[in-house]
Amino acid sequence: MKTTDIITRIQTLGDAAIDSPLASRSQGGYTQNFVSDDRRIAYNVDPEKLAADLKTHGTVPGFESAGPRKKIYFDPSKLKCAIVTCGGLCPGLNDIIRSVALELHHCYGVRHIYGMKYGLQGFIPQYGHDTVDLTPDYVSQIMDMGGTVLGSSRGTQDMDDILDCLERMSIGILFMVGGDGTLMAAKKITDKIKERNLKISVIVIPKTIDNDIFLVSRSFGFDTAVDISTNAIKGAHNEAAGYPFGIGLIKLMGRHSGFLAATAALAQQDANFVLIPEIDIDLYGPSGFLTALETRITQRKHAVIVVAEGAGQKFFTDQATEYDPSGNIRLKDIGVFIKNEITQWFNEKQIPVTLKYIDPSYMIRSLPANANDSVYCGFLGRNAVHAGMAGKTGLLISHWNNHYVHIPMEASAGKRKQVDPHGRLWQSVLEATGQGSLVNG
Amino acid sequence: MKTTDIITRIQTLGDAAIDSPLASRSQGGYTQNFVSDDRRIAYNVDPEKLAADLKTHGTVPGFESAGPRKKIYFDPSKLKCAIVTCGGLCPGLNDIIRSVALELHHCYGVRHIYGMKYGLQGFIPQYGHDTVDLTPDYVSQIMDMGGTVLGSSRGTQDMDDILDCLERMSIGILFMVGGDGTLMAAKKITDKIKERNLKISVIVIPKTIDNDIFLVSRSFGFDTAVDISTNAIKGAHNEAAGYPFGIGLIKLMGRHSGFLAATAALAQQDANFVLIPEIDIDLYGPSGFLTALETRITQRKHAVIVVAEGAGQKFFTDQATEYDPSGNIRLKDIGVFIKNEITQWFNEKQIPVTLKYIDPSYMIRSLPANANDSVYCGFLGRNAVHAGMAGKTGLLISHWNNHYVHIPMEASAGKRKQVDPHGRLWQSVLEATGQGSLVNG
Amino acid sequence: MKTTDIITRIQTLGDAAIDSPLASRSQGGYTQNFVSDDRRIAYNVDPEKLAADLKTHGTVPGFESAGPRKKIYFDPSKLKCAIVTCGGLCPGLNDIIRSVALELHHCYGVRHIYGMKYGLQGFIPQYGHDTVDLTPDYVSQIMDMGGTVLGSSRGTQDMDDILDCLERMSIGILFMVGGDGTLMAAKKITDKIKERNLKISVIVIPKTIDNDIFLVSRSFGFDTAVDISTNAIKGAHNEAAGYPFGIGLIKLMGRHSGFLAATAALAQQDANFVLIPEIDIDLYGPSGFLTALETRITQRKHAVIVVAEGAGQKFFTDQATEYDPSGNIRLKDIGVFIKNEITQWFNEKQIPVTLKYIDPSYMIRSLPANANDSVYCGFLGRNAVHAGMAGKTGLLISHWNNHYVHIPMEASAGKRKQVDPHGRLWQSVLEATGQGSLVNG
Amino acid sequence: MKTTDIITRIQTLGDAAIDSPLASRSQGGYTQNFVSDDRRIAYNVDPEKLAADLKTHGTVPGFESAGPRKKIYFDPSKLKCAIVTCGGLCPGLNDIIRSVALELHHCYGVRHIYGMKYGLQGFIPQYGHDTVDLTPDYVSQIMDMGGTVLGSSRGTQDMDDILDCLERMSIGILFMVGGDGTLMAAKKITDKIKERNLKISVIVIPKTIDNDIFLVSRSFGFDTAVDISTNAIKGAHNEAAGYPFGIGLIKLMGRHSGFLAATAALAQQDANFVLIPEIDIDLYGPSGFLTALETRITQRKHAVIVVAEGAGQKFFTDQATEYDPSGNIRLKDIGVFIKNEITQWFNEKQIPVTLKYIDPSYMIRSLPANANDSVYCGFLGRNAVHAGMAGKTGLLISHWNNHYVHIPMEASAGKRKQVDPHGRLWQSVLEATGQGSLVNG
Repeated sequence: MKTTDIITRIQTLGDAAIDSPLASRSQGGYTQNFVSDDRRIAYNVDPEKLAADLKTHGTVPGFESAGPRKKIYFDPSKLKCAIVTCGGLCPGLNDIIRSVALELHHCYGVRHIYGMKYGLQGFIPQYGHDTVDLTPDYVSQIMDMGGTVLGSSRGTQDMDDILDCLERMSIGILFMVGGDGTLMAAKKITDKIKERNLKISVIVIPKTIDNDIFLVSRSFGFDTAVDISTNAIKGAHNEAAGYPFGIGLIKLMGRHSGFLAATAALAQQDANFVLIPEIDIDLYGPSGFLTALETRITQRKHAVIVVAEGAGQKFFTDQATEYDPSGNIRLKDIGVFIKNEITQWFNEKQIPVTLKYIDPSYMIRSLPANANDSVYCGFLGRNAVHAGMAGKTGLLISHWNNHYVHIPMEASAGKRKQVDPHGRLWQSVLEATGQGSLVNG
Repeated sequence: MKTTDIITRIQTLGDAAIDSPLASRSQGGYTQNFVSDDRRIAYNVDPEKLAADLKTHGTVPGFESAGPRKKIYFDPSKLKCAIVTCGGLCPGLNDIIRSVALELHHCYGVRHIYGMKYGLQGFIPQYGHDTVDLTPDYVSQIMDMGGTVLGSSRGTQDMDDILDCLERMSIGILFMVGGDGTLMAAKKITDKIKERNLKISVIVIPKTIDNDIFLVSRSFGFDTAVDISTNAIKGAHNEAAGYPFGIGLIKLMGRHSGFLAATAALAQQDANFVLIPEIDIDLYGPSGFLTALETRITQRKHAVIVVAEGAGQKFFTDQATEYDPSGNIRLKDIGVFIKNEITQWFNEKQIPVTLKYIDPSYMIRSLPANANDSVYCGFLGRNAVHAGMAGKTGLLISHWNNHYVHIPMEASAGKRKQVDPHGRLWQSVLEATGQGSLVNG
Repeated sequence: MKTTDIITRIQTLGDAAIDSPLASRSQGGYTQNFVSDDRRIAYNVDPEKLAADLKTHGTVPGFESAGPRKKIYFDPSKLKCAIVTCGGLCPGLNDIIRSVALELHHCYGVRHIYGMKYGLQGFIPQYGHDTVDLTPDYVSQIMDMGGTVLGSSRGTQDMDDILDCLERMSIGILFMVGGDGTLMAAKKITDKIKERNLKISVIVIPKTIDNDIFLVSRSFGFDTAVDISTNAIKGAHNEAAGYPFGIGLIKLMGRHSGFLAATAALAQQDANFVLIPEIDIDLYGPSGFLTALETRITQRKHAVIVVAEGAGQKFFTDQATEYDPSGNIRLKDIGVFIKNEITQWFNEKQIPVTLKYIDPSYMIRSLPANANDSVYCGFLGRNAVHAGMAGKTGLLISHWNNHYVHIPMEASAGKRKQVDPHGRLWQSVLEATGQGSLVNG
Repeated sequence: MKTTDIITRIQTLGDAAIDSPLASRSQGGYTQNFVSDDRRIAYNVDPEKLAADLKTHGTVPGFESAGPRKKIYFDPSKLKCAIVTCGGLCPGLNDIIRSVALELHHCYGVRHIYGMKYGLQGFIPQYGHDTVDLTPDYVSQIMDMGGTVLGSSRGTQDMDDILDCLERMSIGILFMVGGDGTLMAAKKITDKIKERNLKISVIVIPKTIDNDIFLVSRSFGFDTAVDISTNAIKGAHNEAAGYPFGIGLIKLMGRHSGFLAATAALAQQDANFVLIPEIDIDLYGPSGFLTALETRITQRKHAVIVVAEGAGQKFFTDQATEYDPSGNIRLKDIGVFIKNEITQWFNEKQIPVTLKYIDPSYMIRSLPANANDSVYCGFLGRNAVHAGMAGKTGLLISHWNNHYVHIPMEASAGKRKQVDPHGRLWQSVLEATGQGSLVNG
C-alpha cells in the first residue's frame, strides 16, 4: 500500500502540555479513558496482508486513533474556535455544528465559538457576512432542521484573505466541514498557516452525499440519503407494478461513484437494473441494457431501474464539455437520456410501456439527519474537538474498521473511493437484481 | 343553484326488500343505526342562502346521506362484486380495496369479491388479465404498500365489452375507483346497464391527487400528497436558505387546480411564491413575478417558489398542442420554464443566485396512505358498500360539509373544482406568502 | 338547540373604525376578500331541522364566520399582543405561536408580540418567568420542534394578578391556547376586563389531544396523535400476530371521550376491540368482553385491543377517588387493569396467551405536528389574529361544517363533545371490529 | 483471547464438489467474485496486538470470511430448506426471510423453501402448525410489514422431535433466526444432527433488539430500534422542557446491556442521565443520582433521564426472584421504581416537579425495518444462504470490522456483549450528558 508511510504522520502545533479538563470530571469513581497518541487502528483486516506487512515493515500500517488526549495544547479559557460548512447540503450538518459547539463549551470550557456564514465566503470581508455566536442555546435544537444554519457556498476563496481573517479573529481551531474541494482548501490553509508560523489547528470533518471520500468508510448523511432514496425507489416500484408494462426509472445522486444507487437498491431489492459510474454498460446489442430490459418487461411485466447521475457519461461524447463555477465538469443528464432511449426502443417494438421517471434530486440531501446519522455526527464532532484541542492539525476525522481515526489530509485529498466491481456491494447488487453484465461479448 | 334539481336523484335498481344482515348484529343491547333514504345533508351552510332556497323551493337543496340501509336490494349469499382501480396512482387505493372487501365479507357476508386487474383492461378478454380473489387474507396487509395491488391503466375501453364481461361474471355491484375519466366511463356503463335492463349497481369512489373533483370536498390521498410535498418544500427551503441568494423551486402536481401547491405551501409557510393554474400572473413588468422575486432575493437573500404543473400554460402559446393517449392535453413543463427564466433574469442582473429545482413528481402519489387518509378511505369504502348493497347505482361517494353523501354521477362528471381566488385557501396563501397580485397594472 | 340564542353573540371592544392594513395589499389587481360581520355558517346541515328552525325563529342558527375584517379596532402601530400556551402538550402548539406572530407582524404590522412563559404562571410576578419577544426570526423554525417554545403549566392563577400583569404590559390582545380549563380561565379574564373597563381582547385557540371541545369539530394536534397512535396499533398487531394466541393491548389517551381510540382503530382496521369512556361494557358474562375475547382468540389465534384511558372507570368504584393539583379526578389505570384481567382469565382457562401491552402515553402529544395539522394551525392562528384585530373578544376560534367560525366562550366552556354511540364514528368501529355490544342481556 | 483457537473452526457436512450456479451467471464479461475458504478477517485491529499474536502464534486470529463459494455442497435441484424465526420480534425479520428465500430461489435455483410457523413450535406435530411455502410471490412485499410473517414463540422444544421433523421433511439447510436461546438450541440441533449422521446444515442469523450477541458487532433491527427510541426521547425532552421543573423519564429495552439506551441518548444529546445495567449507580448520597438530578433541575429547570430496563436491579434485592416460561429472570420494573423515587424525593424537598414517564416498550421492535436495517438484513440473508449452500454448518453470520464473517456457534453461545465502561460509547455518553459517576466516594 502506497499510503502506508504517510497515513500516521499527523501534524501537531506543538507540545500538548495542559491537563485536559476532561480529567477533572473523573471524580467520584468515574475514570475518563484517554487515548494515547500511539494507539493505532490497522489499515486492513486481512491476516495475510497483515503478516506480510509485519514481515516487510516490522509493523502493520494503521491510522492514529481518535479520541480525547490526557494533555491538550490549547488553553480553553483563551481559545477561540471557528466552524464553517462548505459545498452542497448534507443531512447532519447541523448535528456536526451542534456537537462541536457543545463539546467545546461543556467539556472543554471554550467560550468563543464562531460560526462562519456561507462557507469560505464567510472569511472574506467584501461579502460582509456576519459570524454567528454558537452558544449552547443557539445550537440546542438545530438538529431538527435540515440544511446548515450557517449557510454554505461553493468554490474557493483567496487563501491569504482567509488567513488574514483567521488572524484578525485570533482563531485557534478551525473546523471545516466539506467535501473534496474543502479538503484541498483545508490543506492549502494548513500549509499557509505553517508558512506564517501561526498556531492554528485545521480539522476537517469530511462531508459528501456520494460517500466517496478516500479512506473514509462511511460519510455522515449517507444513511439518511439512502433512507430517502429508498422511498423514491418504493414509489417507482409501485408505479411500475401499477401498470401493464410499467417501468419505474429513478435517478439518484452520485457524480463519480454509485454507493447511493447501489445501497438504496439493496434496501428493498425492488430494483432490476442499477447503473453506476464505475460499471460500463452497453445500451444496444444482445447483452445490452435495452435488450435486457425488454426481456424483463416481456417476462415479468414491470421493471425498476436505478441510475446514478454520473453513470453512462460516455454516451455524451459528442457533446461539448461544460464546467460549473467550481470547475467541476457539468454532468449530462443520464436520467433523461435513458428515459428517452427506453421510450424510443419500446415505441419501435410497439410494446406499450408506461414509464414513470422520478428524480428526488435535492430532497435526499436537504432534510434532517436520521437517528443513525445523528449519532454518527455526534462522534465525528466530539472527535474533531478532541483532535483540535490536542493541537493536532492537517487531518480529517474518519471512521475505519469500526473505529474513529485521524487521517492526514494529504492521504485523502484528491483521491476518491469508488464502488469496487469485485467487492461485496456490487456483487450483492448483481445477486439481487440479476442484471448480468449488460456488456456485449 | 343549477344542480339543485339533480343532486338528490339517486337511481336504484329496484325495491330494497331484504333485511340488512347488519340488523342481526344488533344483539345484546347494541343497536345498529340505519340511515333513512330521506336523510339529506344541506348543500350549503350559508343561512341566508338557505332561507332564500326555502322560500323559493319550499326546501333546501341537499345530498342524500350515505350509510347503511335497513333494507338491502342484493342477496349477499348470491351476490358477486367486482372492484377496479383506474388512472393514476393515489395513496389509499389499497385501503379502499381492503375496506370494500372487508365490509362486503365480514358485515354483509358476501363471498365472491373479484379484483379486476389493470383498470378497465381487466374487463377486456384480449388483454388476458386474470382476476384476483379478494379474500380477507389477501387484503389483510395491503394498506402497507403504496400503489394498487390490482394495477391500473389509463384510457377507456369498449363499453359493450365491459358490459359483456360484467354479464359473464354475473357481477351485481361494480365498484370503480378513479378520476374524472373513470366517472365518465362509469356513467356510460350505468347507462348501458339500463339499456340492457341489467341489475348491476355501479358505485364510484372518486380519486384524484389534484383534489379537484366537483362536489367532493376532499379526495382520499390528498392529505398524504400534502405530507410528502411539504417535505419537498422543506428541502427546498433548506437549499434556498443554505446559500447566499439561494432560490428553491418546487414543482408539484396539479393539472388544472392548485389545491396541492396551495395547501402544501401553507403547511410550513416557507414558500414566498405560489403559482397555480387558477391565478394568472405576469412574468415581466413592474409587478411581474421576476421583479417581485428579485425584490425578495435582494432584501431577504433567499426565496422559495412552489409552482403547480398546470400553472402558466399561457407562456407556451407558441408551441403546438400535444395530447396523451387518453386525449388529455400534454402540459408544457412550467417548472423547467420558470427555472430557465429565473436563471436568465438573474444572469442579466449579475446577481449570483443559486437555484435548486425539486420535482418530487410521482413520489407524492405512489407511497402508502397516511393514517388520516387510511381512516378516510375506510369510510369511503364502507359507504360505497352500503350504497351498492341497497341497490343504489349511478352515484359517487363524497364527503360534504363533514358528512358522507351520495352524489349522482351526472352532477359531478365533466365538471371540476378549482381554487377560488376569493376563498379562504388562496387568501391565506396571499397572507402567508405576501406575494401580491404578480399582475401588472 | 338551546344554544341557538347565544351562539352568535360575539362581544366587541368597540367600533372597528380603522382601515385594515390588509386592504392596502390589494394593489395591482389582487383584491383582498374581507368577511362581513353578518356572515354566518349554519349550525346544522340537516335540511329538515333547518326548515323547522326557519319556521320557528325566522332564521337558521349559525356561527359568526371568521376571517379578516375590512375595519379593525386596534391601531397596529401601538398595539401590544401576548400569547400563552396552557395545560398539556399538543402537536402544533409551536405552529399556532408562529402563525399568530407572523400574521400580526407581516400582515398587520404589529411589532410588540410577547410570549408568556409556562402558561398562566407567566403572568404572576412571584414565579419570575421572563417573557419572550416573538420576532419573525425567533419563530421561523419552531414548528419543527414538538412541545411549546413558551412552556406551559397546569392549574389556574389569581385572576387579579393576571389582569394587573396585562395592564402593566399594556396588552391589547391576549391569545390563549388551551383546553377546557383555559377556556374557563379565559372567560373569567374576559369578565374581569369588562369589570375594569379595559380594552383587551381575549381570543382562545382551543387545544385538546382528546378532541372533545364542545362546538369544535376537530382540534389541532388530533390528526398527528392519530398518526402516532396508529403506529402503536400496528406494532401491537404485529406482536399479536407474531405469537400463537397473541394479544396486543394498547392504551391511548382520552379521559372522557374516545375519539382518539376510535379513530386510530379505524386507520388500519387491525383492532378487534375498542373500549372507550362513552360506551359501557361488561367484563364477565356470556356477552362480556372477556368471553368475546376468548372466542376471538380461539377462533383467530390473535386479537388486538385498544382501550382509551377513561374507559371502564366503573370497575374501580371500590377505590377512593383522588384528584390532581388542577382538581381533575385521577383516572385509575384501565390499561393495567384490563391486562391483569385478561391474564387471569386465560390462566384459568389454561389458554397460553402471549399478551403485549403498549402505552405510547405522552409520545402521541409531544412530537411536532404533521403537515395536515400544520396547515390547520396556520388557519386557526390567522383567524385568531383577524378576530382580535377587529376588536372581538370572549370567543374561541373553531372549525364547523368545514368553515372557520367564532364561538362565544360561554357557548362552549364547561361542556364536552363525546363520541355518539349512534353516530358514524362509533358505528364504523362496530363494523370494522365486529365487537358487538359487549353487554350482557 | 481464549477463543482464538476456535473462531475459525467452521464445520462442514462434506466436500463441496458442485459448481456454484452463480458461476454460470458470469457470462458476457461480468465475473462473479467467489470467496475462498481461506479468507480471514482479523479479529482485532490493534497493530500491537496483531504483532504480538503473529509473534506468538505465527498468525493473527481471524474469522472465516462469508460470501459465495465457487463449489457448493448441496444440489439445488433436490435441496429443501427451512427457515424459522424464534423469540421476541425485531425489525427486519421479514427482510431476512425475504432475502434468504429470494437468494435461494433466484441465485441458486432452490425450489423448496419452507417457513416454519411460530418458532420451534413449528417442528412439533402436536401444535399442528402448517408450514408456509416461501415463493418469490409470497415474500415480495413482506418487508413492508413489521413482525414476522412466520410468527414466533419463546422457549425451547424437544430436540428429538425437531430432528424427526427435519428428517421427515428432508430438510438440507435450516436457517434459524433468533437470539442467545436460539443459538443454544441451534448448537444442540447441530450436535444431534451429527449424532444421527445427517447431512443438514444449521445456519443462525443472530437476532436481538439489545445488540448484545457476542462476536457480533451490530444486530439487525438495532438501528430501527434506535430510530424509534430517539423519537421517544424527543417527546420526553419536549415534555420536560415544556413545564417548570419538568422531568422526562424514558425506559428502553436492554435486559443485560445498555446499547440501545446509550445509543439513542446520543442521537439527539437531549438526555442528561443514562442508566444502564453495566454501570452501577447510587440513588442517594452526595454523588448519588437523586442529588445529581436535583442539582440539574434547580439549575436548568428541566431534565431528561433514559433508563434501560435491566439497570438498577440491585435495588430490588429484597424482592423474590421470579422466572418467565423460558427460564429467564423476570426483571423488576426499574422505570416505575425510579419514577416513584424521584417523585418522593422532590415531594420531600417541596420542589414542584412535573414528571412524565414514557415507556415505548414493544413499539421499538414491532415496526418494519428502516432502510439501513433492510440493507443489512439483505446481506445477512444472502451470506447465510452462501454458507449453507457450501455445506457449512454450526455457524452464525456476523459482521465484524466491517466485513461479513462466519462465527462458530460455540464461540458465541452463552456469552454476551456488553457496553464497555471504558469504551468510546459510554465515554461519549458521559461527555454528552455530563452525568458523572453517580457513585458515592
